[in-house]
Amino acid sequence: MSDIQTMPGFLLSFEGSEGCGKSTQIRLLQQHLEAAGRQVVVMREPGGTQVGEEIRHLLQHAKAGEGMTREAELLLFAASRAQIVREKVRPLLEKGVFVILDRFLDSTTVYQGIARGLPVDEVRAINAFAVGGTLPKLTVLLDLDTDTAWQRIHATGRELDRMESQPREFYESVRQGYLDLAGAEPQRISIVDASRSPEAVHADILKLVESRNHAV
Amino acid sequence: MSDIQTMPGFLLSFEGSEGCGKSTQIRLLQQHLEAAGRQVVVMREPGGTQVGEEIRHLLQHAKAGEGMTREAELLLFAASRAQIVREKVRPLLEKGVFVILDRFLDSTTVYQGIARGLPVDEVRAINAFAVGGTLPKLTVLLDLDTDTAWQRIHATGRELDRMESQPREFYESVRQGYLDLAGAEPQRISIVDASRSPEAVHADILKLVESRNHAV
Repeated sequence: MSDIQTMPGFLLSFEGSEGCGKSTQIRLLQQHLEAAGRQVVVMREPGGTQVGEEIRHLLQHAKAGEGMTREAELLLFAASRAQIVREKVRPLLEKGVFVILDRFLDSTTVYQGIARGLPVDEVRAINAFAVGGTLPKLTVLLDLDTDTAWQRIHATGRELDRMESQPREFYESVRQGYLDLAGAEPQRISIVDASRSPEAVHADILKLVESRNHAV
Repeated sequence: MSDIQTMPGFLLSFEGSEGCGKSTQIRLLQQHLEAAGRQVVVMREPGGTQVGEEIRHLLQHAKAGEGMTREAELLLFAASRAQIVREKVRPLLEKGVFVILDRFLDSTTVYQGIARGLPVDEVRAINAFAVGGTLPKLTVLLDLDTDTAWQRIHATGRELDRMESQPREFYESVRQGYLDLAGAEPQRISIVDASRSPEAVHADILKLVESRNHAV
């Protein structure tokens, strides 16, 4: 197995709570990289592997009330991740592709830990087994204070999904969970202040990618 | 969550390579316990949970050539185990049932480690998360030297399944893998010489159950 750090590609994951502007930043980064002639693939788990799609179906089916345990749920997420990493992400990195993941293992650690009450250390250990060393060269944490996130989400006027309609304390816990992870892995996870304009945030992200010694 | 050791039931798992007489011994023990008025449930994973059956379907489907990675396979086994333990095994133990598992976590450790080449320590850690403390009060390892196992299987004359038709070295590795586990957890895993008559083996198993301070 090739070492992820020596593969010609670049693996970047985006993390952040609802309302942080993740979709916008992913689009801006992709456009910038493609304009520079770089091949970019944006993925979101389970990301179209056969195994992953079947697991997603199982998870959605179970949510409807089959009584799936939180441990089984976590292990199914991990199985899907183990598959996508080996079947899709690594081959793309070996070909030199710039792979952007819209959420990755840190989301599981934070959300499963907070929403399901699973011990963060155990969740991290299972994530580590699932990814098997395929860690992002850079994880951008789009950090936003809870007030601003709350205002942004409620200003849209549209109907909120399950995650967005959680109480304020949940947002605050998610934010703190992410900041704790960034504190524990500062070399991989960079905190970016997402309260500013999309252009200012984008410029910071470009600098971070460059700082990882990779021409953009 | 109740401590498994204080639950009124008894959790016993049987382990051993092909040809060790596991099915016979499970039947004899069940008959003995039921004759003594004990409620007994024999289970084999995934064991009839909705989630487990869907995972089994996924595993079988993938075996047909969908290219499932060994890590995803292990995590799916673990997800199924996490579900059955919480949905079925623990409630039965709380009701005082004597639960017999026809293979359990040690099979995964040995077979995934040997057949798939996964590190035993990582497999054990994931198993530990999946069972969450629901370890058998007793695990009976029916140990058989490879020559005898080989002769027994080939003497039947019937068509051999995928596991039975492995080469001799595989049998030897599985046997050694089990013995290593028993060496690491001698209080839980008891080695029983399975080369003797079914009656002699059965008598030993009864003594082991009694030695765990449980009236049979």
